[in-house]
Amino acid sequence: MTKLWQKGYSIHEQVERFTAAQNSYLDTRLIRHDVWGSLAHVAMLKHIGHLSESEHQALQQALRNVLELEQSGDFAINPSDEDVHTSIENYLVTSAGPAGKKIHMARSRNDQVLVDMRLYGKEQLHSVSNKLLALCATLQEFAAAHKDVPMPGYTHMQRAMLSSVGLWAAGLAEALLDDEQLLTAVYQLNDQSPLGSAAGYGVPVPIDRQYVADLLGFARVQNNVIYVQNSRGKIEAAILQTLTQIMLDLSKLAQDILLFSTVEYGFFQLPQEICTGSSIMPQKRNPDIMELVRARAQTMLALQQQILGIVTGLPSGYNMDYQETKRPFMEALDLAEDCLDICTLMISKLKVNTERLVAACTFELFAADRAYELASTSNIPFRDAYRIVGAEVTAQLDRQIPFPVETQEQLVARLQARSHLGGAGNLGLDSIQQRIGQARTAWQERSATFKEAIQRLVGSHTIKILQED
Amino acid sequence: MTKLWQKGYSIHEQVERFTAAQNSYLDTRLIRHDVWGSLAHVAMLKHIGHLSESEHQALQQALRNVLELEQSGDFAINPSDEDVHTSIENYLVTSAGPAGKKIHMARSRNDQVLVDMRLYGKEQLHSVSNKLLALCATLQEFAAAHKDVPMPGYTHMQRAMLSSVGLWAAGLAEALLDDEQLLTAVYQLNDQSPLGSAAGYGVPVPIDRQYVADLLGFARVQNNVIYVQNSRGKIEAAILQTLTQIMLDLSKLAQDILLFSTVEYGFFQLPQEICTGSSIMPQKRNPDIMELVRARAQTMLALQQQILGIVTGLPSGYNMDYQETKRPFMEALDLAEDCLDICTLMISKLKVNTERLVAACTFELFAADRAYELASTSNIPFRDAYRIVGAEVTAQLDRQIPFPVETQEQLVARLQARSHLGGAGNLGLDSIQQRIGQARTAWQERSATFKEAIQRLVGSHTIKILQED
Amino acid sequence: MTKLWQKGYSIHEQVERFTAAQNSYLDTRLIRHDVWGSLAHVAMLKHIGHLSESEHQALQQALRNVLELEQSGDFAINPSDEDVHTSIENYLVTSAGPAGKKIHMARSRNDQVLVDMRLYGKEQLHSVSNKLLALCATLQEFAAAHKDVPMPGYTHMQRAMLSSVGLWAAGLAEALLDDEQLLTAVYQLNDQSPLGSAAGYGVPVPIDRQYVADLLGFARVQNNVIYVQNSRGKIEAAILQTLTQIMLDLSKLAQDILLFSTVEYGFFQLPQEICTGSSIMPQKRNPDIMELVRARAQTMLALQQQILGIVTGLPSGYNMDYQETKRPFMEALDLAEDCLDICTLMISKLKVNTERLVAACTFELFAADRAYELASTSNIPFRDAYRIVGAEVTAQLDRQIPFPVETQEQLVARLQARSHLGGAGNLGLDSIQQRIGQARTAWQERSATFKEAIQRLVGSHTIKILQED
Amino acid sequence: MTKLWQKGYSIHEQVERFTAAQNSYLDTRLIRHDVWGSLAHVAMLKHIGHLSESEHQALQQALRNVLELEQSGDFAINPSDEDVHTSIENYLVTSAGPAGKKIHMARSRNDQVLVDMRLYGKEQLHSVSNKLLALCATLQEFAAAHKDVPMPGYTHMQRAMLSSVGLWAAGLAEALLDDEQLLTAVYQLNDQSPLGSAAGYGVPVPIDRQYVADLLGFARVQNNVIYVQNSRGKIEAAILQTLTQIMLDLSKLAQDILLFSTVEYGFFQLPQEICTGSSIMPQKRNPDIMELVRARAQTMLALQQQILGIVTGLPSGYNMDYQETKRPFMEALDLAEDCLDICTLMISKLKVNTERLVAACTFELFAADRAYELASTSNIPFRDAYRIVGAEVTAQLDRQIPFPVETQEQLVARLQARSHLGGAGNLGLDSIQQRIGQARTAWQERSATFKEAIQRLVGSHTIKILQED
Repeated sequence: MTKLWQKGYSIHEQVERFTAAQNSYLDTRLIRHDVWGSLAHVAMLKHIGHLSESEHQALQQALRNVLELEQSGDFAINPSDEDVHTSIENYLVTSAGPAGKKIHMARSRNDQVLVDMRLYGKEQLHSVSNKLLALCATLQEFAAAHKDVPMPGYTHMQRAMLSSVGLWAAGLAEALLDDEQLLTAVYQLNDQSPLGSAAGYGVPVPIDRQYVADLLGFARVQNNVIYVQNSRGKIEAAILQTLTQIMLDLSKLAQDILLFSTVEYGFFQLPQEICTGSSIMPQKRNPDIMELVRARAQTMLALQQQILGIVTGLPSGYNMDYQETKRPFMEALDLAEDCLDICTLMISKLKVNTERLVAACTFELFAADRAYELASTSNIPFRDAYRIVGAEVTAQLDRQIPFPVETQEQLVARLQARSHLGGAGNLGLDSIQQRIGQARTAWQERSATFKEAIQRLVGSHTIKILQED
Repeated sequence: MTKLWQKGYSIHEQVERFTAAQNSYLDTRLIRHDVWGSLAHVAMLKHIGHLSESEHQALQQALRNVLELEQSGDFAINPSDEDVHTSIENYLVTSAGPAGKKIHMARSRNDQVLVDMRLYGKEQLHSVSNKLLALCATLQEFAAAHKDVPMPGYTHMQRAMLSSVGLWAAGLAEALLDDEQLLTAVYQLNDQSPLGSAAGYGVPVPIDRQYVADLLGFARVQNNVIYVQNSRGKIEAAILQTLTQIMLDLSKLAQDILLFSTVEYGFFQLPQEICTGSSIMPQKRNPDIMELVRARAQTMLALQQQILGIVTGLPSGYNMDYQETKRPFMEALDLAEDCLDICTLMISKLKVNTERLVAACTFELFAADRAYELASTSNIPFRDAYRIVGAEVTAQLDRQIPFPVETQEQLVARLQARSHLGGAGNLGLDSIQQRIGQARTAWQERSATFKEAIQRLVGSHTIKILQED
Repeated sequence: MTKLWQKGYSIHEQVERFTAAQNSYLDTRLIRHDVWGSLAHVAMLKHIGHLSESEHQALQQALRNVLELEQSGDFAINPSDEDVHTSIENYLVTSAGPAGKKIHMARSRNDQVLVDMRLYGKEQLHSVSNKLLALCATLQEFAAAHKDVPMPGYTHMQRAMLSSVGLWAAGLAEALLDDEQLLTAVYQLNDQSPLGSAAGYGVPVPIDRQYVADLLGFARVQNNVIYVQNSRGKIEAAILQTLTQIMLDLSKLAQDILLFSTVEYGFFQLPQEICTGSSIMPQKRNPDIMELVRARAQTMLALQQQILGIVTGLPSGYNMDYQETKRPFMEALDLAEDCLDICTLMISKLKVNTERLVAACTFELFAADRAYELASTSNIPFRDAYRIVGAEVTAQLDRQIPFPVETQEQLVARLQARSHLGGAGNLGLDSIQQRIGQARTAWQERSATFKEAIQRLVGSHTIKILQED
Repeated sequence: MTKLWQKGYSIHEQVERFTAAQNSYLDTRLIRHDVWGSLAHVAMLKHIGHLSESEHQALQQALRNVLELEQSGDFAINPSDEDVHTSIENYLVTSAGPAGKKIHMARSRNDQVLVDMRLYGKEQLHSVSNKLLALCATLQEFAAAHKDVPMPGYTHMQRAMLSSVGLWAAGLAEALLDDEQLLTAVYQLNDQSPLGSAAGYGVPVPIDRQYVADLLGFARVQNNVIYVQNSRGKIEAAILQTLTQIMLDLSKLAQDILLFSTVEYGFFQLPQEICTGSSIMPQKRNPDIMELVRARAQTMLALQQQILGIVTGLPSGYNMDYQETKRPFMEALDLAEDCLDICTLMISKLKVNTERLVAACTFELFAADRAYELASTSNIPFRDAYRIVGAEVTAQLDRQIPFPVETQEQLVARLQARSHLGGAGNLGLDSIQQRIGQARTAWQERSATFKEAIQRLVGSHTIKILQED
């Protein structure tokens, strides 16, 4: 096949390989999005009178055929085709006759790839939000089931004050729910139609950008055509920045589980089926998946850095550098989705060792409680109470007088006493559940708008839009 | 003065220097925020009956004195005090008597520093949004004044299609307006009260977290107390991620101006008063400020990376590592504000060389126009039209036939023909102005809520909250 | 096949996919290195009496068979095998009988993967250095061919002083030659044998680590067994840091070529065969490969960041996180090699437009020359001369008096006058050539040592070690 | 005072602040290096006949006065002076008469700042290497003192095999010794004289670059003048890359100590004098300094990223962006030095709890030993032995049969059995000591060369070159 711009000379083979090899591989993921964009584009060309009814139908039919071929794995993009856009145009020229040669009117690969990335991003963000909310729900349930299991709370990695397993898990859920708000913000940023910006400077043709945007289910047209180009990589980066926030939370979840499941802590136990073993030490149960989540959080930081590094400082207008943002964008979305899933699996399988947890709730945790008690019941100011307790504790340690051990019941009573908002005795699990529910509804509404638009475009063709379908 | 936790031994001088030196310097910026938080905290202690009326008044008075001292530059934080919290508590103990020793009841420096950072962040985000909207307005005016000045549009840094100075400037304004939406999202994330989480595990004391949050003008209580601690650095990172988006846009603005003001392009001229000179070449006018904006965009990426690197993978609970996030957070906000200001100055001073711009609109820019014309007026499909024009252009180049030069009027007519949404003939400047106005109103409302709350707290004391005051 | 550690239970399918999928794909590149390491290991086991002569021969034969299978593409690693080490051990157990079960004596996959990465790194560093020196040689020739072609020298992207095409190209060559020194340093760091560290804590078996190191051609044993494990990722990062230095140089080369081949500069012309075209603008010659080099420099920074991010802050001992360093390591080496090659192609094809270059050498470039002349010939101090020339130039500009244009001959005379070391009149091209030659010799010696060792191990089997073979 | 390039107009105050404020603050650290460079430069100007003997003496005297003023803290750089170079030239013009106006002959601030950074870098690298070797020595001694203290060795943060405190500490020392080799490589890269490159394109004046380089004690002239400019930031980045390697090692040291000093592990105890306390929990001993080392390793990564981000993709020639590399360079060196010192303090104070360590050496650690024993003494292949032991262990665990506890003596015997190179029974501490000694000698030689050269330049003036002086 030929490149769109080929005009009678051959490109150096090494150049072809350097520029297109990886790209054509990534583009196999964009076939259906490119078809959707093209379906909207041809409908608009028909709408403004550039295509006849029959030309439109021929193109529509051929484009829908591409969807069939894709679903059966029969639509291939060769490196010599450079990209998905060329492959599909070449297919249309072959199968839809002269109309195929009309499809590129008033557009450019520059706005085509943008629309593909936006649609791909929308699809993936639905998947990310689904998985994120599933993890929240799993954490919420885990918190509910373990709200009365005491746990040492650490600061500086040292035992500090009384906490609970429920408090820990609910805290992770709330972090992710805040991320969901950021996800919504970047979803809205991404929900702008770039089509019609062409090479980045618009076209001297009376196209109808709003019409195309509506057909594709976009919330609005991204107006200024130079900004449209300049937002390549920028919006991808904004999405990755939010994924970084998610991975930051997951890295804490992972690090905590790694610590708490050491033999030294012994708070959690990981069932064998989710651990790997050692080639040399037969008894090992390695928490590989948590180590990989921890490592992949760093990979996410690097992917975010990669996109930002590539686009920062570039002059306005399309630059080939943008092509290099495609891969980190796709990989980052995959990575976040896989890590969310694996964490959901982990939490659903995690065993809690209450005995070890109760035993770990040693005297250190109650020194501040004691100072609060003194300050509350006497009229001793807190700072003096703090010093009195400090002296007591130090003396007792020096004289090696053991501290009394508390029973689980006593500890639970202490937990209940933390009855202020967000304390171990007042986790607010209902409110977490509500937030999950509201977020689900909002995403489902967005998803419905998106799917309905695409369904109209692809007609009777069974669509696969969102991964969970 | 002494540290809050000191109990009769001396800390190694090298350790003191390693841990506190830089921190106490940064904390001078947090004095008033720490006072505001303390004013709310003591009001709450009074509210729940832990402080008497007279104790409350003594503390309130002493805290307001700190504000006076700060404004006159007379409140110092010594490294031996470790931090602003200790300095202020030490001051209160000295000046408010026993009540001073009661202030630390039911709180910890861990939630204190969080509330300081949140309030500092709010203040600064108001400043960032002000400066960002000022730049948008300047760009919008610049675009309006130059909407009919043609300019080559570039792709791959090569002349590609016709553009205009107005299109360029308006595109930058729209990018920044999208950033404003992200700023709003992170402002809301930041607008949660952390007070009451204490060391990160709450307190066995019936504090009223909602009461404190209301007094400080926060939109809501940040619920789960572990999440409150875990969000240290996380919310700062989210803010920096948005600042990175802003700097990404400014880096494009800077790179474009750097290119367009070379003698080779000659599109823009920078007045002498905003340039620096050379110690060796007398005629030089160096666009230093744009080079520094370009470089500082990279600094911003690094600051974002620094915070994310520090917090990713940390276990739950307060870790001293968090202290290292304070400096990049403060520096990043300063950096963004300075760069926004300098870009506003730059745009307001930028001279446009219309003659050079018109001369640069050479034939390359119109090849696609010609293909569109062919495709629109004949029934030649675009792909064929493209090839025909390609052959024509190539032949003309080969035979060294000059291409006709267009006048500014002809070019403006071409610009007008790009009449679709966001094209050079339809910039949508009114809509940009509207978006600026709406954003201003929204930020002013947030600012009013914030200021009113703080005003109530500080009483008759004249407050300086937002930088622009 | 089974995992090495499997003991009668099944691992969760999702866990298997999360941990092994990508790894087994990457490991297909490590088959031969794993075999080499195993050949040395079995020879050592024989040497210390743990294997009989016949067991050794059976294992040796089977291992050499793996090399055959690899070369014909017939050795596959299934995700269910986890990694290359398991695949090969499983193969040995099948084909070499009970001896196959003895191979894992006194080693672990932890030191196996380390030896694989070291050998892979050595191989690739030879390839990198070859390509780097080829680019240096091409730049040196290009500089020699264009040493008398004047060119404006820029500071702040503004014309500053006289330069030459030769000076520009020779400067890039010298940068790369300095990188070569860093390459040598990291090659030596990498040239340590990790075998015998086992899981990271050695073995209670009298193995001979020096024997193995000698067989594999390593310069020395990496001594402390904990350090051996802790250096996973560390040495990879050191290598990537050097590749980052190389990419930094190439990014300058690319950015310069991108600027100098715009129509505005017009200094360089890129032949059509190494450019790509536009789908919409028929006359475009897009310098894609230079844009991609510029972008990939940023990718390299991100890869370096990824490895460093993953390993920094990990506790001592093997952590699964290390597995995530394999991919960025391999990709970074590929990336650097491809970019070096494409730059060599670019320089070898670059056309220089002397006419445009001479025309661009305008008066700005000579103001400092004039001040130097004044200061040298009169007794006017330089600072006064500078101010005098500044006033002259300003006056002439104000009165719009044209500056005299210089001919190429005059310019060449000026170039010659820069006769100090490293000036345009004294490029030191011979010395560059010498440095290239010395470096080549040194790498060839290292390569010979390496290949001879591997050749002895693999016996009559035709080896493919270095990519260029 | 005036800027060097000022020619009768005023620069906008906001621009002045944006460009110079931070820079002039940083430049106070460069006063003496700038003087050294200037002393060499004027000697060269005298050597080539541009300065008379008396002019040379006047300048030499005035420059040496600056050194006096600097040592007494009386040489200030105002932001209106822009930088150290301008301040000193202004001083010379005032104090050395017309000769002061001659000093800038044949140089530029571009090569001046380069020479300052190189000299500053050399000085600091001496300090870094000193501190690094001091830490190595402390670790070596600590390892010697604890070579027979058993410790569990971890993989995947799970107990894996027997290790020792000595093995752990010696491993850290070896890592740092490898870093020392990289330090030497970057020292050599930095040890090139940039003087004479002027603005980046040399000068049409017969300067003697070798003469200047020799006076300053540089190992060689950095030849190509464009490369000299292009190496700004590049060499700084190379130095920071090595510092990153050091911080990577320290982050492991810190993370290990943080883990091992939790109450759960209890292997190490940190004396109170190097810990901080809690404002709320009186018994806390917080290992702040190790947390800060862990965090600062991330800061170092960000600083490295910052410099690389700034310089990557810049076109050739001086760009103002380079000024932004000064601060991260200086901060990174400070950071590394402080962290090395604090780690030396930490190791020298660390208390080892042998009882807890022995108790932690539980059965898990010996499963592989048992398999090795089986494989060594019977003819059972290792893989079968592994499975047999695995079954035994599993059965014993299932039936809750306790595993025998080993005494310290038994454990030490096991340590001794790891007698291969680098094993716990063969740490190679003598060889570490030797490497430290050799490195010290090599750095002292470099230091002597450097100091002698500078001493000759500054004459009888007492010099402070290296920080440790």
